[in-house]
Amino acid sequence: MTTTLQDCRALDAQDPLAPLRAHFTLPPGVIYLDGNSLGVAPKATAARVADVVTREWGTDLIQSWNTASWFDLPQRLGNQLAPLIGAGQNEVVCTDSTSINLYKVLSAALNIAREDSPARRRIVSERSNFPTDLYIAEGLCKERGLELLLVEPDDISAALTSDVAVLMLTHVNYRTGAMHDMAAITAAAHAQGILCVWDLAHSAGAVPVDLNGADADFSIGCGYKYLNGGPGAPAFAWVHPRHATRPDLKFMQPLSGWWGHAAPFAFTPDYQPAPGIMRYLCGTQPIISLSALQCGLDVFTAAEALGGMAALRTKSLALTDLFITLVEERCAGHGLGLATPREHARRGSQVCLTREYGPHAPPLRGSLPPEGAVTALGRPVAGDSGAYAIVQALIARGVIGDFRKGDGGNGPHKDILRFGFTPLYIGFEDVWNAVEHLRQVLDTAEWQRPEFNRQHAVT
Amino acid sequence: MTTTLQDCRALDAQDPLAPLRAHFTLPPGVIYLDGNSLGVAPKATAARVADVVTREWGTDLIQSWNTASWFDLPQRLGNQLAPLIGAGQNEVVCTDSTSINLYKVLSAALNIAREDSPARRRIVSERSNFPTDLYIAEGLCKERGLELLLVEPDDISAALTSDVAVLMLTHVNYRTGAMHDMAAITAAAHAQGILCVWDLAHSAGAVPVDLNGADADFSIGCGYKYLNGGPGAPAFAWVHPRHATRPDLKFMQPLSGWWGHAAPFAFTPDYQPAPGIMRYLCGTQPIISLSALQCGLDVFTAAEALGGMAALRTKSLALTDLFITLVEERCAGHGLGLATPREHARRGSQVCLTREYGPHAPPLRGSLPPEGAVTALGRPVAGDSGAYAIVQALIARGVIGDFRKGDGGNGPHKDILRFGFTPLYIGFEDVWNAVEHLRQVLDTAEWQRPEFNRQHAVT
Repeated sequence: MTTTLQDCRALDAQDPLAPLRAHFTLPPGVIYLDGNSLGVAPKATAARVADVVTREWGTDLIQSWNTASWFDLPQRLGNQLAPLIGAGQNEVVCTDSTSINLYKVLSAALNIAREDSPARRRIVSERSNFPTDLYIAEGLCKERGLELLLVEPDDISAALTSDVAVLMLTHVNYRTGAMHDMAAITAAAHAQGILCVWDLAHSAGAVPVDLNGADADFSIGCGYKYLNGGPGAPAFAWVHPRHATRPDLKFMQPLSGWWGHAAPFAFTPDYQPAPGIMRYLCGTQPIISLSALQCGLDVFTAAEALGGMAALRTKSLALTDLFITLVEERCAGHGLGLATPREHARRGSQVCLTREYGPHAPPLRGSLPPEGAVTALGRPVAGDSGAYAIVQALIARGVIGDFRKGDGGNGPHKDILRFGFTPLYIGFEDVWNAVEHLRQVLDTAEWQRPEFNRQHAVT
Repeated sequence: MTTTLQDCRALDAQDPLAPLRAHFTLPPGVIYLDGNSLGVAPKATAARVADVVTREWGTDLIQSWNTASWFDLPQRLGNQLAPLIGAGQNEVVCTDSTSINLYKVLSAALNIAREDSPARRRIVSERSNFPTDLYIAEGLCKERGLELLLVEPDDISAALTSDVAVLMLTHVNYRTGAMHDMAAITAAAHAQGILCVWDLAHSAGAVPVDLNGADADFSIGCGYKYLNGGPGAPAFAWVHPRHATRPDLKFMQPLSGWWGHAAPFAFTPDYQPAPGIMRYLCGTQPIISLSALQCGLDVFTAAEALGGMAALRTKSLALTDLFITLVEERCAGHGLGLATPREHARRGSQVCLTREYGPHAPPLRGSLPPEGAVTALGRPVAGDSGAYAIVQALIARGVIGDFRKGDGGNGPHKDILRFGFTPLYIGFEDVWNAVEHLRQVLDTAEWQRPEFNRQHAVT
């Protein structure tokens, strides 16, 4: 028996987390399945930001360093975030960007390895890790004469050899939504004397994370995806307490700016790192953007009374299960594949569909616009996966997901249609409606219209 | 003949820049002489920030990367800032913090030196440079086995020897307001084959700067002081075009994040730097705070029609001249000294007064509060400079400057009372009133009251 719209409505009616949707400003007519890229604005944010601009800055000016506790803000937000990722109090700071925080913690891990086990000269990561993570690691390896070994997910265990200093992984893959077993992989790495750096960009606020429970070493993550902190919201960094203070490594964290100093207002000419996680701060933080992040975290604090991350995870899996089921029931025959694991333990909070490009691309349907009829627009051509155009057609209908090009690797050539499900504000009827739009876009060949196709779309 | 209040009012009446004050939200009853620490909020900022939160983020969501041109924002703001610092178009980006930008450009300078003149193993800077600059340099020297040589201002020339890779200076000193001759020092450094990194934290928007005219190599600066970008506003980085693109130095700038990639949306696993200044970008920027910075820059754009930086400089010198004159005329006999150069060519846009601590501290006056009468508050004691308490007493009267402790060096022990003059929103009557408050605080020994004194104020 197939799933019906009524079934979805029934699920919404029983959803204990449904009230959380009222915390967000969802634009009318939009089904937003891109919270994994940029989260939705909490309703409280506009007023909070206005207060920072007009009162904290405008009226109180420099005195807000004290009266509004600006100096404590990175750690205060870190403490609010900590329960979502299994971190303790005073173990997390919200600051800078994920790329910069990764530079800090990866440098720190390498500095510890250089001190404690100098023969280890390799970083291992996944070839499909988020590119900026790889760029940062590549630069550090080049500077230090180390090797960056990129492997496929199935080859990680075999790569954990005695010459490896650091294993650097993203917990939930940005392209496929596949989730690693953090505890098991960390244990395997530790058994080989390897430090683990975990990127939680697609995990924090999306799935329960237990950094201390997994005995991770370092972690960073993003403030503007599932945490709904606003565009480019400051990111976060966590360091296991056993590594946070290493008196023998004064520059364990190389971005040794004033905010991470032990006595930041003493203006001494020599650097002395603050104790614990505070040394992972560097320069002056963007207070307006940082304050906005708090409103995103406040929603998770409100969610605590409704079951917190465990309840959010239950709903997230139900939403992604439903999406997969509906796509398979209602969009069959259109060449869609599934990149995201069906197994719950291996799935994040997104579903990635695929269409092949190249010789096995799904056939075009119906009548095509005449070749060359339009110059600024495109035309679907044989060999194109159509994934880009399908996503564009969905966006035009108000269903916002995104497109990721096939990675050009040696496997099957598959482009990705990516749909993120944020259980804070997405409901089951949204899932029904999203799949219904997808079905119509495919059944009517709507995506083949020129306005949805780029020129030279075969890549 | 001494200066009068009427003289000051006459200067305001003739001030062509007076209309600019209307661009700012000055709190009533406040004379804000701390724009060198945190600039005042432009009136336009609240609406701009609200629009970013509610429309760009709240309504347009992920599409604002295109429709609001978020990706171009760091360079767009850099282009708007460029004329203030003598930079060309597409030579500046607004991004990250000053500390992080310094790490980028100082690393780049060291990487160039390592490639082009590997025997140069030293960075020269001033001992009284802003501490965070020294912390960053100290960390880089430690990592690379280089030497950081800190000298007094008069000893800079002698320190420019053939083993020096980089001279790193702050153009206007944060403690004294003394300004370096950027062109002369850069020429002297270049004559010795030394690269120059200039920190413009207390210069950009405060004094005319001509980076290209001075043939500087690298520069960074602050968005939240004289540029009025908001608390912790993103900073900026400039690189001379001759250094911006070095194909042989892929990781010239070591914070190799996605935003500085040549093809940031291609998601390739290997890093390829963007051409020119764009490679100095790293991770995702805090769009709300970055957008607020634009409102600060817009005031300088409006000032162009009134004479721009040249006119602002003329007014700034008139304001600081007036402040020095009035303090000397009206506050004599209170042990105040002057740390800021009288010579215009060597003065930034601030005036730093001094009081000695230790055996030559100015005597206390009148009756003192009984010792031990209050526990949470303090009591002025012999040997204390009184500078901290005087600043606190002024703040209580609405005159906001700040206190900087003596640097504990070998010279005379002088604490600093620091007053910044932002010609965009400070007028000549403000200067009169500020000095009148200072006179009253000193003449009546008001600063000796317990509420203005810390316990154990002798340091």
